[in-house]
Amino acid sequence: MSQPQIGVIGMAVMGKNLALNIESRGYTVAIYNRTGAKTEAVMQDHSEKKLVPSYTIEEFVQSLEKPRRIILMVKAGAGTDAVINELLPLLDKGDILIDGGNTFFGDTIRRNAELDKSGINFIGMGVSGGELGALEGPSMMPGGQKEAYELVAPILEQMSAKAEDGQPCVTYIGPNGAGHYVKMVHNGIEYGDMELISESYNLLRNVVGLSVEEIADVFKEWNHGELDSYLMEITADILTRKDDLETDKPIVDVILDAAGNKGTGKWSSQSALELGVPQSLITESVYARYISAMKDERVAASKILPAPTVAKLTEDKKELIEKIRQALYFSKIMSYAQGFEQMRVASDQYDWSLNYGEIAKIWREGCIIRARFLQKITDAFDKKADLNNLLLDDYFLDITKNYQGAVRDVAAMAIQQGVPAPGFSAAITYFDSYRSEVLPANLIQAQRDYFGAHTYQRTDREGTFHYTWYKEQ
Amino acid sequence: MSQPQIGVIGMAVMGKNLALNIESRGYTVAIYNRTGAKTEAVMQDHSEKKLVPSYTIEEFVQSLEKPRRIILMVKAGAGTDAVINELLPLLDKGDILIDGGNTFFGDTIRRNAELDKSGINFIGMGVSGGELGALEGPSMMPGGQKEAYELVAPILEQMSAKAEDGQPCVTYIGPNGAGHYVKMVHNGIEYGDMELISESYNLLRNVVGLSVEEIADVFKEWNHGELDSYLMEITADILTRKDDLETDKPIVDVILDAAGNKGTGKWSSQSALELGVPQSLITESVYARYISAMKDERVAASKILPAPTVAKLTEDKKELIEKIRQALYFSKIMSYAQGFEQMRVASDQYDWSLNYGEIAKIWREGCIIRARFLQKITDAFDKKADLNNLLLDDYFLDITKNYQGAVRDVAAMAIQQGVPAPGFSAAITYFDSYRSEVLPANLIQAQRDYFGAHTYQRTDREGTFHYTWYKEQ
Repeated sequence: MSQPQIGVIGMAVMGKNLALNIESRGYTVAIYNRTGAKTEAVMQDHSEKKLVPSYTIEEFVQSLEKPRRIILMVKAGAGTDAVINELLPLLDKGDILIDGGNTFFGDTIRRNAELDKSGINFIGMGVSGGELGALEGPSMMPGGQKEAYELVAPILEQMSAKAEDGQPCVTYIGPNGAGHYVKMVHNGIEYGDMELISESYNLLRNVVGLSVEEIADVFKEWNHGELDSYLMEITADILTRKDDLETDKPIVDVILDAAGNKGTGKWSSQSALELGVPQSLITESVYARYISAMKDERVAASKILPAPTVAKLTEDKKELIEKIRQALYFSKIMSYAQGFEQMRVASDQYDWSLNYGEIAKIWREGCIIRARFLQKITDAFDKKADLNNLLLDDYFLDITKNYQGAVRDVAAMAIQQGVPAPGFSAAITYFDSYRSEVLPANLIQAQRDYFGAHTYQRTDREGTFHYTWYKEQ
Repeated sequence: MSQPQIGVIGMAVMGKNLALNIESRGYTVAIYNRTGAKTEAVMQDHSEKKLVPSYTIEEFVQSLEKPRRIILMVKAGAGTDAVINELLPLLDKGDILIDGGNTFFGDTIRRNAELDKSGINFIGMGVSGGELGALEGPSMMPGGQKEAYELVAPILEQMSAKAEDGQPCVTYIGPNGAGHYVKMVHNGIEYGDMELISESYNLLRNVVGLSVEEIADVFKEWNHGELDSYLMEITADILTRKDDLETDKPIVDVILDAAGNKGTGKWSSQSALELGVPQSLITESVYARYISAMKDERVAASKILPAPTVAKLTEDKKELIEKIRQALYFSKIMSYAQGFEQMRVASDQYDWSLNYGEIAKIWREGCIIRARFLQKITDAFDKKADLNNLLLDDYFLDITKNYQGAVRDVAAMAIQQGVPAPGFSAAITYFDSYRSEVLPANLIQAQRDYFGAHTYQRTDREGTFHYTWYKEQ
């Protein structure tokens, strides 16, 4: 066995699977975990693999080829700082630390600057694909020193997922926190995708009146078209599964309707608010999870608050299903348009020079939001690298032309039927706002000038104005 | 002239007007401004008033009765810290600093704790009412040491606005950052109110087809009913005003439709996201301002993105106007329900023991969101202090029963007509989510368990479960 070319710290399932993935590409991998028992367990299960276990962090560091390449897969937050502080006195200038956790991008910016003072390279790398992706090939979003990235690129490219055209699903994202930022937006988009699928499911079930099995078939069919994606595929699969305990129900019917979250969707919305980017679809998806988690309150409210009187739908089932499909695709496009807009503004703000086409490219495989339509985003940015908004690209423009009628019908129908579809509503109101030459914000600005003398601009000349609304003292 | 019982630092318009307000209640007021010219100007304009100017901060502090009462009206942020640092060596234990700026509540928590170590009381006080309110009687939301509040309460109560029943629009809100937090939510609610009014205006103008003058009349009429409020009143007034430069147009028609913001709405949404509170209406209002500010992008997009093919409305104008009125009131209630829910969660999180009925009470006059219906909120909390959600109170419940049909029609119509109404949509989707016993979040939780082994809960038993979706390695 050769000297380990790379090491992984943290032997929870993501760290273990990444180590096994790298090993499977022909490398020898050093592994370490704070509590030795996990390392032992990995060695027992994989005794035939080229893994070099260490039971102290000193031993682990000494075992590595130089410049050292170390991937941290530990719980994001204080845990990451603790490990870095332990490692720092043991490292040499030029060594490369890669944080593969779901770290807040601001922390990565701070750590990158701090470690840079000691000559240590620090790469914040978003890793998407879940446990299976980590093992078989994730999509990875590394940000940090470019020259350090070059020294790990061959390994990352081999361990990454490969797109249909054979290209690796990893690329250099940008300096300091760029990688973790892009992963955060990826996760926000993931929240949006999941919300839109769940709204479609809800409408198919409670408005169209399909059974769980029938919805599974609908999603399977949708997955063969424009909506072809990992999340659509697993949703169709989920809907075919039966309870694995005593009931004979579909598993979704025994799962509590209270969605959790790990905070990356929230961060994404908070950052959009900070940057001044209208990112309503992801935010509504985050809020939808929050309200789902208020299960007891909702159950109580459902017994008190009035439902609407609903007219029975007379529309043809098949037509309605197709409308929901179109609404889903249209809304998904709005969500991505907002997410890419957020990255554009962040890139300007933080001086990252993000390459949007490349980002869409490495999301085509490996990650949770992998989907056929990401190729269309890559194509759009290939045609026009400084595209302001995805919607202005010909392909997406055509979809809005053809599908806006459907999304209007579906969102309006959901509102009339009393079935919450905040994602669909946010999608169409964003579209209508963005394509509005004139919005009623003139009135808001007049109000602000009235009560707070906040001034206003005019439509017919440059400058800042204040109106004498009342006699001032 | 007696020794000043209180001093004001910062002679910009808000500070000057607060000082004049206090003086008008019979107090002698010390005033100070970093640049002396502003202080001189105030003294020139108001030479007959009991104002005691100082041109050094030492002189200002020495001029005050003890324990000193000092109101800071300076630009929030680093400016506040700078003044505090200058003041600190000059103050004695027991003195009371009141920050009346639009300060982020987290900063107030920090400053309160820091100053407390030196025995200095620090009150963070939200002040609402704009320039005129500051002069004639604002609504004030002070948070900090209770015993320090008692020492300034007589002055604050005199200078505050008075509600119809004669009660002062100021009350002790809670410890440390509670006052600035409540002011932040107040401002978020203000964003929501303004957005809903602007959406109503937009629909009245572009769907119903009314002229600006006709809309002014409609709003004037609405202001005599349930919607009676300051913002409705000034909006009706604004819509009657003509351009004060050369055109003869209504002033709203020459004001650019790009709304600014000072960040408090954004903070409010960021905090809701942090606390896990679904606060969609305020957030959509913040995003609506952001998208309004993207004027050049919108103008370009309006020439490219397709408008819907719209059927001409056949509905009776009068009926439609009444529906919009009902939609506005219903949506306003949803916004307040979300805002009060946010304060409830914040109160638990930060240990503030907020009194929601008292908060609604001091918003009845003086502040920008003052409105007749705030009495209904006070009544609701008087009936049930631990009310979970405003919607469950009988009065508000009745409104939802009677008006939900209208808001559904209006939100659906806006979507079909291509007129953005994100506030109305957010209102009805929140209502439908909150009253849903079952939401499709079971599917989201199944997806999370599928790709990330995030586990799920069941509907039929306690515990945490993981489904074997695929053969794991």
